[in-house]
Amino acid sequence: MLLKDKDCIVFAGDSITDMGAARPFGVGPGEPLGQGYPRVFDNMLNAFHPEIRVRTVNAGISGNTSRDLRARFETDVIANEPDVVAIMIGVNDVWRHFDHPANRDHVSLQEYEENMRVIIERSLQKGARILLMTPYIMEDNEQDRMRRMMDDYSAVVRKLAGEYNTMFLDVQQLWVDYIHAGRYSMFLSSDRIHPSAIGATLLARAILHTLDITLDN
Amino acid sequence: MLLKDKDCIVFAGDSITDMGAARPFGVGPGEPLGQGYPRVFDNMLNAFHPEIRVRTVNAGISGNTSRDLRARFETDVIANEPDVVAIMIGVNDVWRHFDHPANRDHVSLQEYEENMRVIIERSLQKGARILLMTPYIMEDNEQDRMRRMMDDYSAVVRKLAGEYNTMFLDVQQLWVDYIHAGRYSMFLSSDRIHPSAIGATLLARAILHTLDITLDN
Amino acid sequence: MLLKDKDCIVFAGDSITDMGAARPFGVGPGEPLGQGYPRVFDNMLNAFHPEIRVRTVNAGISGNTSRDLRARFETDVIANEPDVVAIMIGVNDVWRHFDHPANRDHVSLQEYEENMRVIIERSLQKGARILLMTPYIMEDNEQDRMRRMMDDYSAVVRKLAGEYNTMFLDVQQLWVDYIHAGRYSMFLSSDRIHPSAIGATLLARAILHTLDITLDN
Amino acid sequence: MLLKDKDCIVFAGDSITDMGAARPFGVGPGEPLGQGYPRVFDNMLNAFHPEIRVRTVNAGISGNTSRDLRARFETDVIANEPDVVAIMIGVNDVWRHFDHPANRDHVSLQEYEENMRVIIERSLQKGARILLMTPYIMEDNEQDRMRRMMDDYSAVVRKLAGEYNTMFLDVQQLWVDYIHAGRYSMFLSSDRIHPSAIGATLLARAILHTLDITLDN
Amino acid sequence: MLLKDKDCIVFAGDSITDMGAARPFGVGPGEPLGQGYPRVFDNMLNAFHPEIRVRTVNAGISGNTSRDLRARFETDVIANEPDVVAIMIGVNDVWRHFDHPANRDHVSLQEYEENMRVIIERSLQKGARILLMTPYIMEDNEQDRMRRMMDDYSAVVRKLAGEYNTMFLDVQQLWVDYIHAGRYSMFLSSDRIHPSAIGATLLARAILHTLDITLDN
Amino acid sequence: MLLKDKDCIVFAGDSITDMGAARPFGVGPGEPLGQGYPRVFDNMLNAFHPEIRVRTVNAGISGNTSRDLRARFETDVIANEPDVVAIMIGVNDVWRHFDHPANRDHVSLQEYEENMRVIIERSLQKGARILLMTPYIMEDNEQDRMRRMMDDYSAVVRKLAGEYNTMFLDVQQLWVDYIHAGRYSMFLSSDRIHPSAIGATLLARAILHTLDITLDN
Amino acid sequence: MLLKDKDCIVFAGDSITDMGAARPFGVGPGEPLGQGYPRVFDNMLNAFHPEIRVRTVNAGISGNTSRDLRARFETDVIANEPDVVAIMIGVNDVWRHFDHPANRDHVSLQEYEENMRVIIERSLQKGARILLMTPYIMEDNEQDRMRRMMDDYSAVVRKLAGEYNTMFLDVQQLWVDYIHAGRYSMFLSSDRIHPSAIGATLLARAILHTLDITLDN
Amino acid sequence: MLLKDKDCIVFAGDSITDMGAARPFGVGPGEPLGQGYPRVFDNMLNAFHPEIRVRTVNAGISGNTSRDLRARFETDVIANEPDVVAIMIGVNDVWRHFDHPANRDHVSLQEYEENMRVIIERSLQKGARILLMTPYIMEDNEQDRMRRMMDDYSAVVRKLAGEYNTMFLDVQQLWVDYIHAGRYSMFLSSDRIHPSAIGATLLARAILHTLDITLDN
Repeated sequence: MLLKDKDCIVFAGDSITDMGAARPFGVGPGEPLGQGYPRVFDNMLNAFHPEIRVRTVNAGISGNTSRDLRARFETDVIANEPDVVAIMIGVNDVWRHFDHPANRDHVSLQEYEENMRVIIERSLQKGARILLMTPYIMEDNEQDRMRRMMDDYSAVVRKLAGEYNTMFLDVQQLWVDYIHAGRYSMFLSSDRIHPSAIGATLLARAILHTLDITLDN
Repeated sequence: MLLKDKDCIVFAGDSITDMGAARPFGVGPGEPLGQGYPRVFDNMLNAFHPEIRVRTVNAGISGNTSRDLRARFETDVIANEPDVVAIMIGVNDVWRHFDHPANRDHVSLQEYEENMRVIIERSLQKGARILLMTPYIMEDNEQDRMRRMMDDYSAVVRKLAGEYNTMFLDVQQLWVDYIHAGRYSMFLSSDRIHPSAIGATLLARAILHTLDITLDN
Repeated sequence: MLLKDKDCIVFAGDSITDMGAARPFGVGPGEPLGQGYPRVFDNMLNAFHPEIRVRTVNAGISGNTSRDLRARFETDVIANEPDVVAIMIGVNDVWRHFDHPANRDHVSLQEYEENMRVIIERSLQKGARILLMTPYIMEDNEQDRMRRMMDDYSAVVRKLAGEYNTMFLDVQQLWVDYIHAGRYSMFLSSDRIHPSAIGATLLARAILHTLDITLDN
Repeated sequence: MLLKDKDCIVFAGDSITDMGAARPFGVGPGEPLGQGYPRVFDNMLNAFHPEIRVRTVNAGISGNTSRDLRARFETDVIANEPDVVAIMIGVNDVWRHFDHPANRDHVSLQEYEENMRVIIERSLQKGARILLMTPYIMEDNEQDRMRRMMDDYSAVVRKLAGEYNTMFLDVQQLWVDYIHAGRYSMFLSSDRIHPSAIGATLLARAILHTLDITLDN
Repeated sequence: MLLKDKDCIVFAGDSITDMGAARPFGVGPGEPLGQGYPRVFDNMLNAFHPEIRVRTVNAGISGNTSRDLRARFETDVIANEPDVVAIMIGVNDVWRHFDHPANRDHVSLQEYEENMRVIIERSLQKGARILLMTPYIMEDNEQDRMRRMMDDYSAVVRKLAGEYNTMFLDVQQLWVDYIHAGRYSMFLSSDRIHPSAIGATLLARAILHTLDITLDN
Repeated sequence: MLLKDKDCIVFAGDSITDMGAARPFGVGPGEPLGQGYPRVFDNMLNAFHPEIRVRTVNAGISGNTSRDLRARFETDVIANEPDVVAIMIGVNDVWRHFDHPANRDHVSLQEYEENMRVIIERSLQKGARILLMTPYIMEDNEQDRMRRMMDDYSAVVRKLAGEYNTMFLDVQQLWVDYIHAGRYSMFLSSDRIHPSAIGATLLARAILHTLDITLDN
Repeated sequence: MLLKDKDCIVFAGDSITDMGAARPFGVGPGEPLGQGYPRVFDNMLNAFHPEIRVRTVNAGISGNTSRDLRARFETDVIANEPDVVAIMIGVNDVWRHFDHPANRDHVSLQEYEENMRVIIERSLQKGARILLMTPYIMEDNEQDRMRRMMDDYSAVVRKLAGEYNTMFLDVQQLWVDYIHAGRYSMFLSSDRIHPSAIGATLLARAILHTLDITLDN
Repeated sequence: MLLKDKDCIVFAGDSITDMGAARPFGVGPGEPLGQGYPRVFDNMLNAFHPEIRVRTVNAGISGNTSRDLRARFETDVIANEPDVVAIMIGVNDVWRHFDHPANRDHVSLQEYEENMRVIIERSLQKGARILLMTPYIMEDNEQDRMRRMMDDYSAVVRKLAGEYNTMFLDVQQLWVDYIHAGRYSMFLSSDRIHPSAIGATLLARAILHTLDITLDN
């Protein structure tokens, strides 16, 4: 189990993480954590492992790109003195290329990597362990245009996880495996981005497993 | 695993089950199931076991006693042709003695047993398997007045589970074990009756385990 | 131009058509038509062709399958004495197989065809011209599971259009062509089913063109 | 076609343009553009011409006169680095003479011209092309008092369009032509100022045509 | 003064009369009378003439034509046992020709006269005095298309007032006189149909004057 | 007539004047003037006297005493460059003695007179004519405790009106006369302070008459 | 103490009693009892006398006269099988003479007495004890017009209390005594009819004292 | 009686005191005092003792610990120049140990005592009398974990009351006595912390009695 009693874990991300969390960041348990995977994570951790008492913080803000997260990382993440920083950012970096194609301030793959490096190094500097999660689209067709670009950004995350030796969760693969198990993507999400409660439950378990925490104990 | 693909499970109960479910009953997945343990159950089942596709029905109505549930059992439960009927009723049977002590229509222990027998026998007659759950108050002090009366009603449930050979879940014990693990009851509920999301998560796992369904698969 | 002054056109369908239309059906112009393609159709027809004054009726109801539409066809569609009946139904017939797989009342391909025949023949009997539109998912990947089943239902529509010699619009192809022109499906819809305002605009033009009505006149 | 891929067009104006757009200005596609003609313009452009991807900006603010627009032109319009600036302002300059006759700060015809010149010259200085649109009242009776004053202000716009060689759209004439085609002004608007969805559709087409963009392609 | 202590006056009409009155009809004083001219009438009557205590009833319903009013005249008007019946109906009879031109159930001029006769004769039969008011559009241009048709319907009202010797108020002329006094129609109404508070005040005085009741007493 | 075309009149006061007016002050016509007597005044003036166009300003703020009004007189009243300042203040100066008897900051009779002098002299200095109105309670029993204190404050207003030779309206007497005409005070107000629409109508007429403006013209 | 453990007391009345109680009648404790004196009564009884557990029922309905209460007495009062019936009705019987003077269905003093007799006799017939309370206006001026009529109706209540030997509470006197103790009527109520929370507290104590129940025990 | 005419009493505390009071603090009578015990106190004091007129101030803020109250004591409490300061703080100091066990800023027992001393001494310095009330949980089981810690904090309050010779109310004991009288804790509160209206009534009486004020006078 990679979390111990009195640890603090901060989830940093975009609308997938946010889901109505309190501002500037929400602290668990309950409503302040929003309605997304951080709350399901906290629910399971508290319900199944009363022996460890963890401070869970939701530092997701809707619409954020890696550039936005980098800009507010000190005040929203580091200031919480986390033991573990869980980062899932990048969906908007990619999405803006598709829904606002004429924008002039897209986050390039190169900038994405730079932003991620700053975030990671600052976390390491403060002694936090890091969990990197890939951005994704809940689509198993690898030829899908948005999937293709998302895979490029995911590849950066995987590379950095190796380079900095962080914990790593391939969320893209998580969804693909579920779809291959026979359920249509609409079970996980209506728009293939924002997880339904079922999707959030699947993701929360994956994070717990990555942290070596079981559910059936 | 005591549920198989295409089965239907109906949760019959009171406000603990209801929690904003659609009327006359809510069918999953998602919002129609309300915000309580039936939805967490359905979220986990769908997220962790895509190989079995189950129709989950929430037939809880706030304020119901066993007398109310008996009266609507045919239309709200049986009409769904359930393979499994999960019943948690009795909290209001007891509670009304405490918050409306001058009422003249309390459900006595004897009537409670009769109501439960009607419900159980009707379910069996239709070929459904039954999961009986005890009523409870999230209180580990066995001398607490409401706990004492609740234990009497729970004893009826345990007796009937044995007599009719149904599945059985001692929900009272579930909460007591959690409290004994070191967490105060307010983690499970603000009023010791209606589970928080954490409480609902703990209860949903207990139901899944009773149905021989794992979470870490 | 296949509509003439004082004609009545009724759009019959599901949530794609409904989009907040007045009940039991909405009559244009304006808000009573809802926010979907029937209103954009009516906006364009009134704006660009003031010389023909058409009564546009929105008879879509969210969640409807072909079975539901058939059941209310007399009161909601025929009672309006339409000159043209435009029918787009079937998405829910297919969708329910995916989001409620354990339901026991799915509309089979065979029933779908029967429902459509009843609807078509009743319209013809009343002297109305018919515009048949295929159900769809805004997905260009023909191997997508929901797309595959949708294509089967669309094939029925195409077959019946030929058999009864009705007007026909391949809406599935409309979306695919747009995606192939370089825009991601999220431009048309967030969930690949319910058209955005852009999607509704594209669909409305296609319907106008099918009725031999131009926009640049 | 006077717009090319990756261009930015800014609509600057008053409540006719605003219609609930996001503040300080709304960027398309979708809700941030408000519910008026800029959104219909963007819907049509995206739906019918996926080959050009344009950034559409709504910089209208309800109640603005030319004096107000001039004051915020730098921050709300120029700062967006537009390729095309589409300007429709002046209705409130005239209207305030009629609904607040005792006000002491009316925008005179002379000031109107000065404000417009500042706006035009600043746009030209930044290299933007300009589309000037006349203010209007949807009234074909040229003897109407408000129409008469509006015509004076429109004459200024026409004069400046010629002098600065900008694109020009006579919106007053657009409405008159529609009314003469046989539809009462209430089809276009309930108050003869704020276009209905039908009016907005007609205006959006006129703007597209002015930009040499077809709808029937 | 044509009203005496303890009289009952019923205002029968459409949305111009209704303006949010209580259903099925609103009885004064105060909010139940809605926000339109019946309430201003009642306010003035009570404020300026405390010596006569009159029961004012608002029996207007939005969207009503003369056909609708005729259908509910017994229950909504006669049942109140009025001493005076004030009738203003017909705007929707005309308006529907313009905003729903393809409707097939328009109220023709002939039907309008028949409906009015039934209403008048039923009132006379019950011994009530009648105040007939013309429908209108707040437009002084007699060539305006809707004004022309409205004038035809108004002529019927004037004819019937003479024939049955009822009280009569030419509301169309009231608005025209005001406009000719130098104020634009937007002072009276934003849509030239539904009076603003200023319009309602002007109309209420005209009704009081028709009933030979002064305001400066 | 003591108002002429293009004049500006400002109503300065407390909740009786305010009644939901726009902040910091509401300018007519319509909703920005709130729902009290200033709006009825403006409605009547515009409806009955279109030949004079007056800018009516509502500068009332709920809860104000003369001390509060004095403090904001420059920005809320004088800055509007009024030709006429109509002042009704003092009800709260008295009321606070009764509903918050233990407050330590009551406005004494002496302070009230000082506040009024400052307000009056500042208005005169700016060349405005002044209309002074007495505070009141709608109670004809002169022995009523609150009436007695209110009469003391009213006496100050009457004295100052004579001393500075301003226009003067005895509002206390207005209500008493109405009650003596046979109507109970509840017709004018539910709490004997805040006028109903009927009370506001009566007060607005009295102000118009004080300004030598007729209603029956 | 005139209430004993397990007794049921029903409060029957108008808006003074109702104050937002649940429909058709509210049963305590808590919100279902509304916000008026019945709830304060129930709060005090439960807080200060836990040894007697009483079922408190609020059967007040806003706007009721004695005629209305008589009509629903069987279903709303008697059906609760009360041990004590507390009746406060008559304010609206009087009030309608003042705020709707032209109504034709006023409850005369004679009818009031008849209605009260029916209510009293039906209660006695069912074995209930009765507490009669006078209607009132919170006004110590005996010459006030509404007070004078109210006193006539109160006299009927006092007479019947003596004749049928019921419990009796002179609520009119209660308010007068409070006012004479030096507090203005606005402390008790803003409109001299509907008690504030302070007024409800005073009334609740008076009822408890009438039932021989102390507060300082 | 320890309050005299024109005194000011300030209630300083957390959500138990706050209960929706106006910000930054609410002054009675009525809604500004919120819905908790300070308002019931003020209701009773005004209703039963009109001879003393007291300014009651609610300076409770939800979520406050003793640390928070200390920080705002000058501006929220002292600035009101109280004659009596009533303090109930500490529940959140304890509660945070249980519902946010991983927080790093808990208020220790030692800090609690320091905070209380600062608050008490500052009050004494300003000449105010002090009423100290214990924090509590409405639980009679002394072995309850949260009760045990609460008792430690209560002991500090009792000690300081003796040391500084202040008025003292053992609120913990108040609830226990009520429960021992036979009513379950749910009568007093749903969560054993925030008093119901019944609980607030019991507490308000206890405070009045501590101030030597009777209710049955």
